[in-house]
Amino acid sequence: MSRTLVRGGTVVTATGRARADVLAVDGTIVALGRDLDVDADRVLDAGGQLVIPGGVDPHAHVRITFDGVPGADDFASATTAAAHGGTTTLMDFCFQEHGQPLPEALAAWRAALAETPPVTDVGVHMTVTDLEDPRREQELRAMPAQGVTSFKLFLAYPGTYMVDDATVWRTMRAAERTGALVMVHAENGPAIAALIAEAVAAGRTGPEVHPTTRPPATEAEAVNRAVTLAELTGARTYVVHVSCGAALAPIVAAKARGIDVWAETCPQYLLLDDSIYARPGVEAAKGIFSPPARPAGEQERLWQALAGAGLDVVSTDHSPFALAERERRAAEGFARIPNGAPGLEERLELVHETGVRTGRLTLEQWVDRCCTTPARLFGLGARKGAVAVGADADLVLWDPERTRTIRAAEQHSRVGYSVHEGRTVRGGPSAVLVDGQPLVVDGELVDRPRRGFLHRAPVHGRQRQAPGPGGGAPGSRGARPATHEEQP
Amino acid sequence: MSRTLVRGGTVVTATGRARADVLAVDGTIVALGRDLDVDADRVLDAGGQLVIPGGVDPHAHVRITFDGVPGADDFASATTAAAHGGTTTLMDFCFQEHGQPLPEALAAWRAALAETPPVTDVGVHMTVTDLEDPRREQELRAMPAQGVTSFKLFLAYPGTYMVDDATVWRTMRAAERTGALVMVHAENGPAIAALIAEAVAAGRTGPEVHPTTRPPATEAEAVNRAVTLAELTGARTYVVHVSCGAALAPIVAAKARGIDVWAETCPQYLLLDDSIYARPGVEAAKGIFSPPARPAGEQERLWQALAGAGLDVVSTDHSPFALAERERRAAEGFARIPNGAPGLEERLELVHETGVRTGRLTLEQWVDRCCTTPARLFGLGARKGAVAVGADADLVLWDPERTRTIRAAEQHSRVGYSVHEGRTVRGGPSAVLVDGQPLVVDGELVDRPRRGFLHRAPVHGRQRQAPGPGGGAPGSRGARPATHEEQP
Amino acid sequence: MSRTLVRGGTVVTATGRARADVLAVDGTIVALGRDLDVDADRVLDAGGQLVIPGGVDPHAHVRITFDGVPGADDFASATTAAAHGGTTTLMDFCFQEHGQPLPEALAAWRAALAETPPVTDVGVHMTVTDLEDPRREQELRAMPAQGVTSFKLFLAYPGTYMVDDATVWRTMRAAERTGALVMVHAENGPAIAALIAEAVAAGRTGPEVHPTTRPPATEAEAVNRAVTLAELTGARTYVVHVSCGAALAPIVAAKARGIDVWAETCPQYLLLDDSIYARPGVEAAKGIFSPPARPAGEQERLWQALAGAGLDVVSTDHSPFALAERERRAAEGFARIPNGAPGLEERLELVHETGVRTGRLTLEQWVDRCCTTPARLFGLGARKGAVAVGADADLVLWDPERTRTIRAAEQHSRVGYSVHEGRTVRGGPSAVLVDGQPLVVDGELVDRPRRGFLHRAPVHGRQRQAPGPGGGAPGSRGARPATHEEQP
Amino acid sequence: MSRTLVRGGTVVTATGRARADVLAVDGTIVALGRDLDVDADRVLDAGGQLVIPGGVDPHAHVRITFDGVPGADDFASATTAAAHGGTTTLMDFCFQEHGQPLPEALAAWRAALAETPPVTDVGVHMTVTDLEDPRREQELRAMPAQGVTSFKLFLAYPGTYMVDDATVWRTMRAAERTGALVMVHAENGPAIAALIAEAVAAGRTGPEVHPTTRPPATEAEAVNRAVTLAELTGARTYVVHVSCGAALAPIVAAKARGIDVWAETCPQYLLLDDSIYARPGVEAAKGIFSPPARPAGEQERLWQALAGAGLDVVSTDHSPFALAERERRAAEGFARIPNGAPGLEERLELVHETGVRTGRLTLEQWVDRCCTTPARLFGLGARKGAVAVGADADLVLWDPERTRTIRAAEQHSRVGYSVHEGRTVRGGPSAVLVDGQPLVVDGELVDRPRRGFLHRAPVHGRQRQAPGPGGGAPGSRGARPATHEEQP
Repeated sequence: MSRTLVRGGTVVTATGRARADVLAVDGTIVALGRDLDVDADRVLDAGGQLVIPGGVDPHAHVRITFDGVPGADDFASATTAAAHGGTTTLMDFCFQEHGQPLPEALAAWRAALAETPPVTDVGVHMTVTDLEDPRREQELRAMPAQGVTSFKLFLAYPGTYMVDDATVWRTMRAAERTGALVMVHAENGPAIAALIAEAVAAGRTGPEVHPTTRPPATEAEAVNRAVTLAELTGARTYVVHVSCGAALAPIVAAKARGIDVWAETCPQYLLLDDSIYARPGVEAAKGIFSPPARPAGEQERLWQALAGAGLDVVSTDHSPFALAERERRAAEGFARIPNGAPGLEERLELVHETGVRTGRLTLEQWVDRCCTTPARLFGLGARKGAVAVGADADLVLWDPERTRTIRAAEQHSRVGYSVHEGRTVRGGPSAVLVDGQPLVVDGELVDRPRRGFLHRAPVHGRQRQAPGPGGGAPGSRGARPATHEEQP
Repeated sequence: MSRTLVRGGTVVTATGRARADVLAVDGTIVALGRDLDVDADRVLDAGGQLVIPGGVDPHAHVRITFDGVPGADDFASATTAAAHGGTTTLMDFCFQEHGQPLPEALAAWRAALAETPPVTDVGVHMTVTDLEDPRREQELRAMPAQGVTSFKLFLAYPGTYMVDDATVWRTMRAAERTGALVMVHAENGPAIAALIAEAVAAGRTGPEVHPTTRPPATEAEAVNRAVTLAELTGARTYVVHVSCGAALAPIVAAKARGIDVWAETCPQYLLLDDSIYARPGVEAAKGIFSPPARPAGEQERLWQALAGAGLDVVSTDHSPFALAERERRAAEGFARIPNGAPGLEERLELVHETGVRTGRLTLEQWVDRCCTTPARLFGLGARKGAVAVGADADLVLWDPERTRTIRAAEQHSRVGYSVHEGRTVRGGPSAVLVDGQPLVVDGELVDRPRRGFLHRAPVHGRQRQAPGPGGGAPGSRGARPATHEEQP
Repeated sequence: MSRTLVRGGTVVTATGRARADVLAVDGTIVALGRDLDVDADRVLDAGGQLVIPGGVDPHAHVRITFDGVPGADDFASATTAAAHGGTTTLMDFCFQEHGQPLPEALAAWRAALAETPPVTDVGVHMTVTDLEDPRREQELRAMPAQGVTSFKLFLAYPGTYMVDDATVWRTMRAAERTGALVMVHAENGPAIAALIAEAVAAGRTGPEVHPTTRPPATEAEAVNRAVTLAELTGARTYVVHVSCGAALAPIVAAKARGIDVWAETCPQYLLLDDSIYARPGVEAAKGIFSPPARPAGEQERLWQALAGAGLDVVSTDHSPFALAERERRAAEGFARIPNGAPGLEERLELVHETGVRTGRLTLEQWVDRCCTTPARLFGLGARKGAVAVGADADLVLWDPERTRTIRAAEQHSRVGYSVHEGRTVRGGPSAVLVDGQPLVVDGELVDRPRRGFLHRAPVHGRQRQAPGPGGGAPGSRGARPATHEEQP
Repeated sequence: MSRTLVRGGTVVTATGRARADVLAVDGTIVALGRDLDVDADRVLDAGGQLVIPGGVDPHAHVRITFDGVPGADDFASATTAAAHGGTTTLMDFCFQEHGQPLPEALAAWRAALAETPPVTDVGVHMTVTDLEDPRREQELRAMPAQGVTSFKLFLAYPGTYMVDDATVWRTMRAAERTGALVMVHAENGPAIAALIAEAVAAGRTGPEVHPTTRPPATEAEAVNRAVTLAELTGARTYVVHVSCGAALAPIVAAKARGIDVWAETCPQYLLLDDSIYARPGVEAAKGIFSPPARPAGEQERLWQALAGAGLDVVSTDHSPFALAERERRAAEGFARIPNGAPGLEERLELVHETGVRTGRLTLEQWVDRCCTTPARLFGLGARKGAVAVGADADLVLWDPERTRTIRAAEQHSRVGYSVHEGRTVRGGPSAVLVDGQPLVVDGELVDRPRRGFLHRAPVHGRQRQAPGPGGGAPGSRGARPATHEEQP
């Protein structure tokens, strides 16, 4: 029996803070208390520091290829990078090829995971691209039992990832029946493709053209459509990387109507505006992520929704395309550059620096949006994202005075650049524990565990009181196994 | 040193649930843990039960007179009733008479409190009716230091409670400067008064006329005005007893824009519709509360906002006007009946029965809306509304199988009727502890402490990033003492 | 030279009314005046009557086959029916088969028109179903020069009429470049198809299931999408048969933002609610049109938008599927019944009876929504829909006292039923003139002209002040040839 | 009998344009036609020119004193200025002093009118400031019979013009009963007064502070309140000088719900942004009008609403405070400068130049917003604002090539400055006729008639289909005398 005691810190949860010791036995938190009088194998002194749950990043790309460009990270490098920033739980994406049986796709993803084992367990979402064959739909409904309790859909990128509304419907129906969550990349793909084609035909191919081909209306339309289909199917739905106020509006309206809709944004949307596209040379090309950085002013609207209502999570949408590859493609025009930006390592620090230290968020909201809520939404509510009796002892000792400047050269991802290069942040992890064991201490990896697949639980959403559009009666309430706020 | 151990229950907080023991020493929770191996003076077995924080009702009238009709409760009877239902924290209102110095009003309220001591501490809001004399504004700004960290304003009831927008502004400015919360009764008083006068002039005086004189638009308009003034002054603002979707709309929009606005509803709006006014005789007169019960359909919108976004708290707006008095006044027409309904005792049970057991809310949301969020909003975040290390040991052992039928005859309030008469609820408190001491056990008051005034802390709201309308620069972030989610 | 004088009537236009004589020479109105002192070949006494422009119905199906069921009308019967009700201008639809060259489709339509010549000229919209082959896009851009200045798109009916967003984009771009108007049937086809399939799979096949498979959200989503694409492309866009408040919301918002969006509703949405589906036997099957009749209450919202803001036109969506055919199909389930309802003949009477005579609309608004605005939107502003110097002398003498009861047996369409059977209307045409020649007098066809194709003009929309999403500069204002409110 | 023939022009109305001659007999238009073959006493050649109705400005201050500063114009100078710009109908305001009987106020206004007779008839709105005494309400209801069919209310300027919501209600009820229109200056007075007081207390008194004391939210709130009270009372309501998108939102929503609400903006809001407050010296002080000029971007939203939906009229809010007086007051701080800007003379030219010539509006929309709609809304629909048989022969021959540069030195108002100084406009009146008589020709006043009071008719609004909030049944439709689109 291994016993770890974290002593003297201020525990911060999503709803409060208090000075308390934390005792973990065999990887699980078993007690919280004032001056706990217990024996332990390992005692960490958290005096003067915050004790927060390990960060949960539900949107990070590790194994990915975009238009022929492979990502530069593997599971080992990605989880190592995350851990250095205090994030102890990642979720990657398993992409279905067109027509590919889903179990085959999952097997391939898991094989890759086993090849370069991560230092923390990694969960995975199933990215659905083709449900034409009815067997696929059945395979999809079998995923949650295998620990894959979230499905990803793209409304953008026609010809590769984009699905039509019929596929959205089938995926949402599968989710609604099985307790999975549907993640939606909400941009209108055909409109964007047409705007790109019109721009290219007119000889406009520089990176500054990128945002003009993805105006806010293309995002807002797709969000509205996703939210409507969520309403009609009853599927729990999660809009990824919301970038602007126009896209927020249908989300907020849906939440107020009781639709089971959730949304995230990312640091690049909170911190960067479209002036990035006016930067010289490759600097502008670093801003080729989608949706694009928005005009100045939109960032504050996202902060307001994150503090008020509308946004629930800050993820990274970490996209591991190496700088050299981006530069090579930039010569062929903005439309050929792989979309995405890295960000795994700095998430907690950036939100603390620009959210908490500026007064936009409280410490509790920071913990909630970066740890607690993503864990609950994605079927980890009983284990991750909380410093609570019964939860996994994934803990971060956060030193509010630790100061560093973000430098790509010092990152643990292999991407080789950062859109936040040169930004100084105060506050960072002095120690990161996973299952009660130190993993990173004072910026050094002190252990190199070989971890694997993170099995997640289904989460059953709000049950509608009113009969659905099909007129059927709602099911028996007694059968309801769990909800997003429940822990067994 | 008194040590109480609650053993074997499932602790439910706003964000999760887990089997854990709770140890309280001298009235404060000092440890939560699996099978805590500690000594205790008193051990309660919570096996098979939930352990939740004591309920917090931020909107309950005890000392009140309405149009010459005094309330039937005193502090002893009101807190006894609340405790029987699992509510251990009440907040009453201190009404300023026109022109009255606020310290004088507060002293009178505190004297009344001392005269019939409550069984649990009682907080108080200052109801502002007149700030014409500039000394009043200074007195108001001095209130938070005396533990009165919330101010109440009426936009309804011209001639008695209603204040004009200039007074709203001054009150909000005082709140914004001192960390107080501004509660607003949002109905357009002059419009309602005109509609009542027109109805009475036309000889329409039955109780069924009441809702036609307070249409949803009168509520929505006043909410919009309150929210706008909150935005302009930066005051943390709380809209009381929201009754319908039209009134929700401006609240939701404001939250998404980052305005520091919060809102409550009450069981009468969640459970009753305007068919109550078609009931015979005095039954219809029981429905004379304001805003009125709304058309069928509106109730579900409130539930949706409570689960989704828009509503944060369920309070009671308990109004202690005895049935006999109501009947006497009914003879003079609906406009003469004191507005309000009782409800102190049944709040937790009703929301559990019609919210949790129907699947509209999770257990965690029930705890959040009835205990945790009201405590945090009203300056009690560090002490009340949470089962957490460092919090007051106000605990409810909740038996999910306990069943009873609501009967006015069995209530502990002296009002003598209930708008929920005859409704059967499953789930209720088997034991209620205050400061670690049993107060109610199996429906019996087992202690009769003489408690007093509940001193509350100021809570500083979100600080705006954008310069305010006056164009000034935002203040130093360093000076920010506390926020609604912070515990010292 | 043929000279017709209509003497002594009250001329009603979209903006006013006045007693005036109307003189037409060779089919064109050449003078309006008090007691015109002129010679004429023919003098009609309009004393005690209104003189209004001939009705313009921009949405009427004549040549159509739906799921194998051909329409029962031909151009002669359809225009005869319309003329009896005071409508002197119809527009039908030319459906492109998948892959079919558009000139071929148009030629076939014109051949059919020539085969059964109408009694009034008939315009035609090009219904686009497939632009995969780039030649189709070029053919589409050539249509306006041939007098086909409006394109129709379906977002419903996957597998037959439905187009994807890429096709919407190409069509809108073609329209924006050539001054055509894009008409959109806005319902989310895949969602509806899934709801139908789910219902059928559950054995729910009665006509009462029809509205549950097309809930308002499916309409609202598609309208929002159409409006967004209109905004992005700059195409003048017209939403057909708006049926409910949810679908109105994005239209109203778009209009206020200056998007060039217009919308119509039809008498079946203004007058019928979903209680039609509770009628026995074939009566319920008469209600199988799409969108379906909506819940009670929605009708009044449409009237309000028609009088206030949001709806511009009342058309019929006349669908000529004979009752016998509907009954035959009803045995196979609601999903097999051809969608649509007849209505060509009664439009002006129904809107007059239930709009003007109830006070919901003024006489001027009735003329505007049924005659003037449809003429202007569809490229006939200089010739139709107005009693003005220079316009075609299509005139209706309207007797406000003429009373009749709608009976399918007396209709001039061959459909054989009416959803308004038995409704009594007061006010109707006593004489209908086309090009100054009497066509219908006292309910009798007094002439049987052989008319043909109605050539319509392009209409250039509002030019955006702000650069479009592509960032380009707006074109020279000087080049602007005509707008929807301009007459050459 | 005097006969005037305007020959060869292109007549532009609100709904179309056509080449037509216009014949006026004894001041009334009696015929429109192609090549009218009639005798006339006077023939004007309008070849190459537009013929439009004389402009109608429903919001112009002539007789006014603001904070002790009297206006510089009298009725002769004001109407002369207007006529030079093509405006032949003005409406001024009669201000009730507190407690003053309304007939007394009207008599004083009419005496002043008689003293300096205008060159065109002038209508008047009754500005209500005090209905405390019930006799005032009776007097108000008697106004429409005296030709005063519009009432003005201020929600701004507490202590002088501002009325409380009870007075708004009484005024709206009086209007609803008598067919009057309620004009509302919608800004929240107490909020603005507090912001001004806070600014002054902080020593911020320069003109650049003005807009910060009247942020858009103060306007949006008051508009929402006005619209709500209009909905509840059923009064036809007209929001004056809308300045920004935030204020438009509740208007658009109300229109779509069928509320009888209308709105205007003015050239200063369409053309100027808040950079005016950064101009040096007195230039910034010229921008002290209320609401203030708004940030860049808002202007385009107003244009869009004017072309699309939301705004119905362009008036001037002409405020005749002489420049010298403004400069004198500026030394005492922005809060002491009389609010308002002049603009009577340039309205038609400015909207033509920046609206029509840029493609934002069609010629028809220009005529509609500046002539036709204001005439109809304010009870002049049968006589003014239209080139139609039966209307007054107030005609403007508009030369589209006439070019001039706006110079205060050349204005006919006595104000002595223009906020549009130096702007060049193309298009202007070459001749202005009133009652068929030339008044201004080629920029010269050719007649000096002594005109007087313009008697206006009541206009009964849309009758609600749904019972009002009081639950009463709607009245008989038959009794409805007239609507805003009707001409007798």
